[in-house]
Amino acid sequence: MKQHIILFDHIRRFTRLETTHEAILVEKLKYKTVDRKCQLLPQDQVCNAYYFVLEGCLRLYKNTEDGIEQILQFGIPGWWLSDFQSFETRRPSEYNIQAVQPTKVLILERADYAQLFEEVPELNHYFRLMMQKAYMASLKKVELLLCESAEKRYEQFVNAFPNFVQIIPQYMLASFLGFSPQFLSMLRAKRC
Amino acid sequence: MKQHIILFDHIRRFTRLETTHEAILVEKLKYKTVDRKCQLLPQDQVCNAYYFVLEGCLRLYKNTEDGIEQILQFGIPGWWLSDFQSFETRRPSEYNIQAVQPTKVLILERADYAQLFEEVPELNHYFRLMMQKAYMASLKKVELLLCESAEKRYEQFVNAFPNFVQIIPQYMLASFLGFSPQFLSMLRAKRC
Repeated sequence: MKQHIILFDHIRRFTRLETTHEAILVEKLKYKTVDRKCQLLPQDQVCNAYYFVLEGCLRLYKNTEDGIEQILQFGIPGWWLSDFQSFETRRPSEYNIQAVQPTKVLILERADYAQLFEEVPELNHYFRLMMQKAYMASLKKVELLLCESAEKRYEQFVNAFPNFVQIIPQYMLASFLGFSPQFLSMLRAKRC
Repeated sequence: MKQHIILFDHIRRFTRLETTHEAILVEKLKYKTVDRKCQLLPQDQVCNAYYFVLEGCLRLYKNTEDGIEQILQFGIPGWWLSDFQSFETRRPSEYNIQAVQPTKVLILERADYAQLFEEVPELNHYFRLMMQKAYMASLKKVELLLCESAEKRYEQFVNAFPNFVQIIPQYMLASFLGFSPQFLSMLRAKRC
């Protein structure tokens, strides 16, 4: 199926997968189109799936005690999103996963997870590199939060993801970068 | 060797390794004791090794444009530390890795890396889980930086790593948590 080809192309950038293993993957992954605001993981529930974004965008966020939705991660095309810790430990998640816009995803559910990794052990290599990329990107974010001004953080983000900035609601981008929507408006006005 | 047993015990918490594979690991990993302030990775050089901390502590930090050493990650016993991105891409690292105190490490060098993962593919599973843990811990840190006061961040850290707080120089802990040493002194005085 066309949607799996996007994933296979992605996997091929990091490791080789035998054709028989691709077939197993097709069998195990579910394809789904979700509407904007569709809640894939509600906070305080155990996370039971990995999501691979084909089109659209997901966000992982936390409802804070102050009643704010703090966005910690976006899932854009080619990105796996999940609360991997909740998935691993089966403890309730502290996060929500929601579609920011109509989004197409491939879903790996818990019921298929163990068998899939047993039958296609090469996926450990692929996901090792995915987790490594995500970890290093997150470390970079910590660095930006600790070392750079809000203005510099915004600049770096716009340069790294120019198309993404056009698509995403501005208040979500502000949340992700750690400042208020008002401050973001000011920065954007300054750049025009 | 005793030092490898610590690693095998650690690996066993996450996956099974055959005895023959343990032997390959012993052969490939180098054991080293490093003095305080020993620089394992200097900024702007390609990172060519993974470090597994057996005893002591390493720090990964960045020399910022303001002349500050911004600590982004500590490597405590049972933790793998590296600039995994620089290792993967062979691009110069933006970070330094240095011993905070006399430290015992096992070192996986680039020269042995590819062959080790080929001969012991189960390590992909182990490192997938290691990267996943590191990623989720880093996401938690982003959350704390964005949502919590400096005081709350300190409290959470002390509760999570009470012994570590006793050992680590205070100015380093302040850097890691994103506030000044003066502010940390004030917090500590308040808690006594």
